[in-house]
Amino acid sequence: MTETRYDVVGIGNAIVDVLSHETDAFLADNDMAKGAMTLIDGDRAAALYDRMGPGVECSGGSAANTIAGLAALGGRAAFIGKVADDQLGEVFRHDIQALGVGFDTPSDRDGKPTARCLIMVTPDAQRTMNTYLGACVDLMPDDVDEELIAASAVTYLEGYLWDPPHAKDAFRKAARAAEAAGRKVSLSLSDSFCVDRHRDDFLDLVERHVDILFANEDEIMALYRVPDFDSALRHVRGHCDVAVLTRGPQGSVVIAGDEVHAVPAEPVDHVADTTGAGDAYAAGFLYGLTQGRDLATCARMGGICAAEVIQHVGARPDIPLADIVNSRVGAAS
Amino acid sequence: MTETRYDVVGIGNAIVDVLSHETDAFLADNDMAKGAMTLIDGDRAAALYDRMGPGVECSGGSAANTIAGLAALGGRAAFIGKVADDQLGEVFRHDIQALGVGFDTPSDRDGKPTARCLIMVTPDAQRTMNTYLGACVDLMPDDVDEELIAASAVTYLEGYLWDPPHAKDAFRKAARAAEAAGRKVSLSLSDSFCVDRHRDDFLDLVERHVDILFANEDEIMALYRVPDFDSALRHVRGHCDVAVLTRGPQGSVVIAGDEVHAVPAEPVDHVADTTGAGDAYAAGFLYGLTQGRDLATCARMGGICAAEVIQHVGARPDIPLADIVNSRVGAAS
Repeated sequence: MTETRYDVVGIGNAIVDVLSHETDAFLADNDMAKGAMTLIDGDRAAALYDRMGPGVECSGGSAANTIAGLAALGGRAAFIGKVADDQLGEVFRHDIQALGVGFDTPSDRDGKPTARCLIMVTPDAQRTMNTYLGACVDLMPDDVDEELIAASAVTYLEGYLWDPPHAKDAFRKAARAAEAAGRKVSLSLSDSFCVDRHRDDFLDLVERHVDILFANEDEIMALYRVPDFDSALRHVRGHCDVAVLTRGPQGSVVIAGDEVHAVPAEPVDHVADTTGAGDAYAAGFLYGLTQGRDLATCARMGGICAAEVIQHVGARPDIPLADIVNSRVGAAS
Repeated sequence: MTETRYDVVGIGNAIVDVLSHETDAFLADNDMAKGAMTLIDGDRAAALYDRMGPGVECSGGSAANTIAGLAALGGRAAFIGKVADDQLGEVFRHDIQALGVGFDTPSDRDGKPTARCLIMVTPDAQRTMNTYLGACVDLMPDDVDEELIAASAVTYLEGYLWDPPHAKDAFRKAARAAEAAGRKVSLSLSDSFCVDRHRDDFLDLVERHVDILFANEDEIMALYRVPDFDSALRHVRGHCDVAVLTRGPQGSVVIAGDEVHAVPAEPVDHVADTTGAGDAYAAGFLYGLTQGRDLATCARMGGICAAEVIQHVGARPDIPLADIVNSRVGAAS
């Protein structure tokens, strides 16, 4: 197999987050499903933005967060996603390129604004997300450069990509290109409501294309429509090479053939905002994997990264991740 | 005197901050004066933004931060400042209105973007600011509504307003309207470099128009060109009704005629980012003053607000300020 140019290329919705502290009553008054990611249209986005408190803007997007984390760890990373030719698009492009990530998907000039996610952080540090996809709906198969995919050890895809109309074709094109080049395909299930929207497609993907699956408890139970985690574990075993299941404060479980690793969560002083916890976990795990670490160490690295991002507002690392991870698990030999 | 509609109206540059963690070496490599606010043009802003790390965007602007803090405390507040008709302008307008601040200065449609301040936060939590004024240079005397000024107990002006070409005329118009209505005029000296640029005008303002002056040690020493704080104290006494001098970890000193109050700083666990410390202090102080508190309590309230904003990244309060202040100094009787 030829040398890789990137450890991981991510494909996802290119989103700028707008985070605000809100009460549970605010969620109820505005008909939000707490903890979920809900898709909203431009009118709803404008109305919700009018009602929400002062915000902080930072680049987001699930796969983009993972790629940003991977780059912050020292990994070689690239990203494919669609922003508009506007100020928020410039913010997204700047932030990911500033981390050294290869990102050259052309901006959309179709008049749709860059996607934004209005995130309500409640006093319990839970986040409730409302996403207006904007320019993301114009991500097309042509935006997927097959040579880039073939040159990347892992192609990482977010389940949310199933929401915009053409992105699933981009997604499939990427998966085929990765397989043809003998590379790995990784998928994050993103959100249990997203799983409900696209269950049959996701089951097919997991069965036929996915080498490394990321899901949290709710998502994996939703995928197999089972009421408990242990049943989900039995279902997922054998469906993909590696299944990585995160359980919040209960840590994570990695299943790979006959191997099972249950790894506790990292200790955390104060949880400020859980936005991006799963994305950061995937960053740490995939970085470990592409550095040749064993699966238990990969899970540990994922947990360390997740612990960092939940201790501040915003989904991306605030401090040099590589230093923290290396100090706890040791640099790669 | 007629009833007031607002406790404080602020006039200032309407700016969106872009904050990034950088090293001291980065400041040196990019010729930045650490701790200062430097004015930059659009080309320099683009070049610096290219070189800086991933950012977090939040509304800023010195007087705007003070007004936001005052509103968060429960004060009745209004703001006058110029944003563009663009996404960052929408962010600024949203954030200040979401706090209940009256803000209806029309957006600039002249093609200049909303002002931004590129803020480098170094590991010592010091901030170094690079401001591209953009649409702020189009703030005109016509933007100052004299009825609004007359209806506000205090008109608060930032020294930075002396930088854009027409704002000083807006500033003078506001000061005259406030005086004519028997209201108070308050000025923040903003920055010692700003004082160096406009010293004669500031001395004249302090002598003839300013009732409540805010300055830190460097600024008040720069104003009077004296080498130590005690000399500056002697100069400022009698130049304005109330001089409020902040000294960072040494707390603050309030001078009003024969009254002198030295108030210690509030204890802080961890300083994350000093951006907006002075602005938050002014918010707490002015809120106390307009609630009829004594000067020592006003200084204490200023210190509590400053302590809150330096414990997180960004210049505006992250948590309900009113609760914190009331729990420490007691609600107004």
